[in-house]
Amino acid sequence: MNNSDKMVPLVVPDFDTYPVTHQLQRATPIAQGIELLWNDGLSNQVPVIWLREFSPDPGTFHSVTREQRIALTDIPQDLSIAQMLIAEDGFLEVDWMPEDLHSRYHPGWLRCAVADPNDPMDSLPDRKLWPLPVTVKPNWLDGAAVYRGDTDALRIWLETLLRDGIGLLDGLPANREVIPAVVELIGPIRASNFGDVFEVESLPSANSNAYTALPLKVHSDLATREYIPGMQFLFCLENEATGGESLLVDGFAAAQQLNSESTEFFEVLATLPVPFGTKDREFDHRYCAPVLEHNAVGELSSVRHTYWLRSPMSGDFSTLNTFYAAYRRFQEICDDPDNQLRFRLQPGQLMAFDNRRVLHGRDAFDPESGRRLLRGCYGEREEVESRLRILYRALRAQEQTQQTGVRA
Amino acid sequence: MNNSDKMVPLVVPDFDTYPVTHQLQRATPIAQGIELLWNDGLSNQVPVIWLREFSPDPGTFHSVTREQRIALTDIPQDLSIAQMLIAEDGFLEVDWMPEDLHSRYHPGWLRCAVADPNDPMDSLPDRKLWPLPVTVKPNWLDGAAVYRGDTDALRIWLETLLRDGIGLLDGLPANREVIPAVVELIGPIRASNFGDVFEVESLPSANSNAYTALPLKVHSDLATREYIPGMQFLFCLENEATGGESLLVDGFAAAQQLNSESTEFFEVLATLPVPFGTKDREFDHRYCAPVLEHNAVGELSSVRHTYWLRSPMSGDFSTLNTFYAAYRRFQEICDDPDNQLRFRLQPGQLMAFDNRRVLHGRDAFDPESGRRLLRGCYGEREEVESRLRILYRALRAQEQTQQTGVRA
Repeated sequence: MNNSDKMVPLVVPDFDTYPVTHQLQRATPIAQGIELLWNDGLSNQVPVIWLREFSPDPGTFHSVTREQRIALTDIPQDLSIAQMLIAEDGFLEVDWMPEDLHSRYHPGWLRCAVADPNDPMDSLPDRKLWPLPVTVKPNWLDGAAVYRGDTDALRIWLETLLRDGIGLLDGLPANREVIPAVVELIGPIRASNFGDVFEVESLPSANSNAYTALPLKVHSDLATREYIPGMQFLFCLENEATGGESLLVDGFAAAQQLNSESTEFFEVLATLPVPFGTKDREFDHRYCAPVLEHNAVGELSSVRHTYWLRSPMSGDFSTLNTFYAAYRRFQEICDDPDNQLRFRLQPGQLMAFDNRRVLHGRDAFDPESGRRLLRGCYGEREEVESRLRILYRALRAQEQTQQTGVRA
Repeated sequence: MNNSDKMVPLVVPDFDTYPVTHQLQRATPIAQGIELLWNDGLSNQVPVIWLREFSPDPGTFHSVTREQRIALTDIPQDLSIAQMLIAEDGFLEVDWMPEDLHSRYHPGWLRCAVADPNDPMDSLPDRKLWPLPVTVKPNWLDGAAVYRGDTDALRIWLETLLRDGIGLLDGLPANREVIPAVVELIGPIRASNFGDVFEVESLPSANSNAYTALPLKVHSDLATREYIPGMQFLFCLENEATGGESLLVDGFAAAQQLNSESTEFFEVLATLPVPFGTKDREFDHRYCAPVLEHNAVGELSSVRHTYWLRSPMSGDFSTLNTFYAAYRRFQEICDDPDNQLRFRLQPGQLMAFDNRRVLHGRDAFDPESGRRLLRGCYGEREEVESRLRILYRALRAQEQTQQTGVRA
């Protein structure tokens, strides 16, 4: 079978299901574009090429991959509309010139495409910062259900993780294969200089403080990387050692508190680039960025704070002194036990957290008193978001099938 | 052996070797800091805490991991210098109060730390854009040498890759295991929705246009991701099919040309967020960012252009029309054969390229005429940079040993 020969038209140019929530009332050609009027009064102006390039016909979209077969440059520059009408089934139908092409647009898809398709967060749960001081107890979710493939349990875990920055699972079997299996329910593991899945215990030839019995104040992992892993998963296999309690703090809430105490302190941490470097015989990643890193639209996106991997910084003497004062104060807020969630991980418990938002740490432990063994790995926020969208997509398809017996 | 008990002092607080290029002449206490004067006239003012936190003593730095054991908050706020002198061996020696601590700073390390440690690119090769139109031929490097572990060949390959955005290897054995083996000489493979290592051939149930026989105009991979993979590796196992020539173009050079033709076009592509979405039954990554993405310091960092994964965008009608005109023109520049490097991959040849800078494509091929099979994977710029630093570090250590017989 030659996959490029299956010229089957699609109903919508992707794999999703679009409920028809509004009727298209009028479509009017305007200069360089089309004006769409909906039955709730919404009206949009879109360029003709916008409509043309999302035509779900088999010449434009590959029927198997549902990806575009064409680029903008494959569309004639003198493109225009020969004829346009709203069909009885509510679809917008367009005949194009000079191309000999007829396109049909699903009204549910079209409404969704014009409404606010640019929002990358779409219908995902909003982030909710922890009120400080922390008064809640750890919220353990049903790990056994997630592990046996219950998609509702998976959805609740991932929604919690995006909203609170942490998602704690209890009741998993305490065996080594659980961690890759559970994480791959979400998406691929992110490999690093520590491998795919790493084991956290006290080792004589440690290549990271994590692999000692040292106390670790709250921190993010891999601040030496341009793109800090968005998720971290730590799974407890054994915990017989004295000490070694786990600590978590919402770094975004701590940053907010710092800002309310001193905008000068917040500003220097949000703007002054700070150099970090991997300390290893085999790796030497370096990256220089503010501790409180903001994205292109000005939102706090990462707390860059692997405190033992910071490199010496140069710069203006007085700015440096302000930086040190601000960074010390930020760490005091993060290290304040009143602002931390603290618990002792038990075998079969897994803590997942947003490594760009929630800082994690542990008390020192005594490796002579018993074994403490965690297995861990990294992932990405993007994979959690992607998996949730797929779960929501399945719910939408199910709903539509129940309502209409057919699927768009 | 308990790793936290080896209280061995380090000479420098990392794994590198620092040649002593300058002598420290004077160290003077000033308010909140220290002034350092060097024998070439350079003078620096650094905060006292700056010097204190990089003390290579065993209480501050773990002797095995060479990472800091302490955080800023472990250092007394009333820290000051009890005594400071330049020792006969050129080391800066400091006695601290109220801590009972004596610190010795290596003059080579100190000079390097005050000079310009913030530059994340340090001594790596500068990027060199391709002059357009392209007149050079593909520059095939010695893949056999890289594969057998020749570190000079590896260094030359990686330097070429950072400078030109592409690094082409010839003469590798055409077997499946070569690609992970060669890439792991650099660092970990970046997994994606296509797995760790993917196979590029025409498949009936393709989940990407890449896995069809369709022509692919030049593009970057995974524009749907917040962090686009910085490196891509494509290795040819078989190429008996008619067609399927490989195309490469320097997207940064194309962006520069666009800017010289029309700053309005460049600006809209550099600022208008464009939504991208993975088309797959199992993944739904979405990200919204400009096609010509700039980093925090205003440098072009990525060309976001998987053209068949762009989602419909909303927004101001006239801005959208400008965007479409600008994007069309950018693609015309990229698709111009005069601006492209074009060659037919032979079995045993590997093309590595900066997937955030260099766009790649292929001509259509006829899967009935013979098999075309590539294996590929993603990596990161950061891993290439890290590996090069390790190679340079080894050269520095070798040089120092040759000169002095000792290693810092």
